[in-house]
Amino acid sequence: MLHQTETTDRAARQGAGSIRKGAARRTKLLPSLDAAIAACELRDGATVSFHHHLRNGDAVLNMVLDALAARGLKNLHVAATSIFPVHAPLVDHIRAGVVSTLSASFISGPVGEAVSRGLVPEPVVMRTHGGRARALDMGELVVDAAFVAAPAADDLGNISGRAGKTACGTLGYPQTDVEVARHVVAVTDSLVPFPVQPIDISQGKVDFVVAVESIGDPSGIASGTTRPATEPVSLGIGEQAAAVIAASGLLVDGFSFQTGAGGISLATAAAVGREMTRRGVTGSFASGGITGFHVEMLKAGLFRTLMDVQCFDLDAVRSYQSDPRHQAMSAATYAAPHLGGAVVDRVDAVVLGAAEIDLAFNVNVTTKAGGILIGGSGGHADTAAGAQLSIITTRLTAAGFAKLVPEVTTLTTPGTTIDVLVTDQGIAVNPARADLAERLRAADLNVRSIEDLAAEATKAASQPTPPRATGRVVATCEYRDGSITDTVRQMEDAP
Amino acid sequence: MLHQTETTDRAARQGAGSIRKGAARRTKLLPSLDAAIAACELRDGATVSFHHHLRNGDAVLNMVLDALAARGLKNLHVAATSIFPVHAPLVDHIRAGVVSTLSASFISGPVGEAVSRGLVPEPVVMRTHGGRARALDMGELVVDAAFVAAPAADDLGNISGRAGKTACGTLGYPQTDVEVARHVVAVTDSLVPFPVQPIDISQGKVDFVVAVESIGDPSGIASGTTRPATEPVSLGIGEQAAAVIAASGLLVDGFSFQTGAGGISLATAAAVGREMTRRGVTGSFASGGITGFHVEMLKAGLFRTLMDVQCFDLDAVRSYQSDPRHQAMSAATYAAPHLGGAVVDRVDAVVLGAAEIDLAFNVNVTTKAGGILIGGSGGHADTAAGAQLSIITTRLTAAGFAKLVPEVTTLTTPGTTIDVLVTDQGIAVNPARADLAERLRAADLNVRSIEDLAAEATKAASQPTPPRATGRVVATCEYRDGSITDTVRQMEDAP
Repeated sequence: MLHQTETTDRAARQGAGSIRKGAARRTKLLPSLDAAIAACELRDGATVSFHHHLRNGDAVLNMVLDALAARGLKNLHVAATSIFPVHAPLVDHIRAGVVSTLSASFISGPVGEAVSRGLVPEPVVMRTHGGRARALDMGELVVDAAFVAAPAADDLGNISGRAGKTACGTLGYPQTDVEVARHVVAVTDSLVPFPVQPIDISQGKVDFVVAVESIGDPSGIASGTTRPATEPVSLGIGEQAAAVIAASGLLVDGFSFQTGAGGISLATAAAVGREMTRRGVTGSFASGGITGFHVEMLKAGLFRTLMDVQCFDLDAVRSYQSDPRHQAMSAATYAAPHLGGAVVDRVDAVVLGAAEIDLAFNVNVTTKAGGILIGGSGGHADTAAGAQLSIITTRLTAAGFAKLVPEVTTLTTPGTTIDVLVTDQGIAVNPARADLAERLRAADLNVRSIEDLAAEATKAASQPTPPRATGRVVATCEYRDGSITDTVRQMEDAP
Repeated sequence: MLHQTETTDRAARQGAGSIRKGAARRTKLLPSLDAAIAACELRDGATVSFHHHLRNGDAVLNMVLDALAARGLKNLHVAATSIFPVHAPLVDHIRAGVVSTLSASFISGPVGEAVSRGLVPEPVVMRTHGGRARALDMGELVVDAAFVAAPAADDLGNISGRAGKTACGTLGYPQTDVEVARHVVAVTDSLVPFPVQPIDISQGKVDFVVAVESIGDPSGIASGTTRPATEPVSLGIGEQAAAVIAASGLLVDGFSFQTGAGGISLATAAAVGREMTRRGVTGSFASGGITGFHVEMLKAGLFRTLMDVQCFDLDAVRSYQSDPRHQAMSAATYAAPHLGGAVVDRVDAVVLGAAEIDLAFNVNVTTKAGGILIGGSGGHADTAAGAQLSIITTRLTAAGFAKLVPEVTTLTTPGTTIDVLVTDQGIAVNPARADLAERLRAADLNVRSIEDLAAEATKAASQPTPPRATGRVVATCEYRDGSITDTVRQMEDAP
């Protein structure tokens, strides 16, 4: 504590005379990405992070990597939330040694293929969305510079996901990066007068701002289907999944729900919504990546609020722009396991997909049959662990391959966190959930053993499941707590 | 980086079998403040922080101090944002040795008197709002537990300032504390089902939640005047201050403005608003503590947005509840000097009050004539330093004492950051701003030398300015950067 001497008063008062007002207004605006890279003092081996709110429309990752390459930097670690086909140029940067390390929660497209073929020198670390937030928070993943694709920003670094020509809605993923990154650069194509409105990331978290011609193509946000399935098999699976939820005992006031954006998931949501209406149930929240379909459920009064880490389509963006019940959440709040409870821990029922599921209910959403990297957990393992009722929906076969297999090629989500499998040929309940199996049977649902369904899948498959790759480890699958659930090995030959 | 061995795949997969879903849903809800104090592992000498959004209606500080005292804790440091008359019971806790150290940005009422009389063993550290945020961020002020008065909260710790029976609006001050405090406790009288909506502080920042009967009296929020002055002298000063702004060259599109909640400040705002309307000027933002009067200016289209660290009255609360143009900002975003630019740095004109101002334009808002602690900088020194035009408005005398004096009793805000003094007897311009003096003279404003005005003040005063107290140092006034502008000394005798 301070103990002042007798002479301090006068000295302090004289010192105060030297305080001057700032002559020029400070700004965080820099003229180029190159200037921002210099200001961040990035060196060879630095870790740079990116988010995927612009999904397959994102231009920022490629643009920043080009600028890093132009500065002659090498051996960089790209710590992305997700990599999409649009990020194909990253392959060349890996080949050129600009990037030697990669981590992400989801990798699809040419980069995934390149990883599987052994192009990245270091094993790629695949984390869950919640695990990545934890790793950032705990200092396991140290980011030297986070580059935030900013739909709108002002020159002091306030960022809005709701304004600008490339509005993408919530900014849940960078919200976590900006908390811990050594430097944060907002990259925007809508530099607006101070202060931008409405603010999604506050200026206090941002060091530099760079204005560019375009951060991406907003139509790329709506990659993938965001409408319920309409063809009969998927619709049937959705109806069955909804029937499972209806029979589970969870479909009462306060019900909370998460689905992905796939056709079966949304078909399930549609059927659940009809049942909620029939019963007069008002849910508490729907969470996750949010689609226009979830927005319709909010508007219909089926849920009190939406908890949105990422808008999956432009209808969701418009809702977040205009409806205060549509709330943003950070990746950490959404799914991190170390904060005493995340939103996923309060989800009653989640409907998830699978590339493969096995007899132990383990799920693979990381590789396709044979081992090519085509995805990753994203929030899959997080929600499965958190939800009271985790439902996997899938057909028994796809493209001639069995999807229900003796052992998954890559273990993304442990079967101990999966409660039910719903297929086009019946429902299997995890043996650990005998209570649930009983409820489903009482509701006259077609409950079968997973072994029966697996046998049927094998019979229906026209091609055998390819063996696992046996090359060196090219990726590790980290569970939310940092433990490793599996590894991905290099393909012997191109598929 | 990870280098997997050949045997890792199988080991990891076996390990995955041990992952279990959480059996019971985690909650941060604790049964009592006592339990929260235990959970925070608070010990003798701990630092506990509080915010003042409930102003003179706050019940949380007293309630928590009682609980800390009941646990037998001693020598605590109370790191408050502001202390009001309602916190009188703190005096007893100081007397009993429960609290031995105090820091705040503003102290009024019985605690201020107790400090001036030497009751607190350690010198009290008076910081500016921005300086406190900086000290927290830089680790100079380490908080063991931040107690957040939460108008509404859910059991995972999401906090809303907009919901609940004691809604106080924005939560700018605790937003800064929760970023760095070792533990954060939300104390709420409206515990609602998860998730609370709309969220102002996210669950990821909160460790524990305690429900209590009442966190305070919402009518206490509107302490002090929040309407423009109506009596002629104050109105006249307001008109003159507005004329200074009108003549300054700053009153053009994009104009940004801050005033306090005092009658003269709001009278100035009213006159500025009329001039904006006359000129067809649209401002960018009004900032600070926000009143219903600022809300009216927003609604009238005079400003594009409000940047609100704290709602000063219930009209402001209602506006923040319903109007997305009314934006919240943290104390750090508002006023901190270390983040490359705060909102105060973008204020064009600020209108501030003074207990005393001297010939060097130094301002005292910390003590009243004679030295009793009656306030503190709050955002005074921050906005004066940031704004292009810092205006002090005051009468030449009050209660028989001169307010314009040769040397201020306590130096809160350095005169080098003050541009103009507007009084009921004329306007004095800081000699460093010859450009401004010229503009004001060109506008036929009554510009006089500060020495002339001071002589007039001395003549008009019926009582001499009491000498400074000469006892031990009872408080230090920290500038925003942590340097010390002055000290407050113990009163020799009670006033």
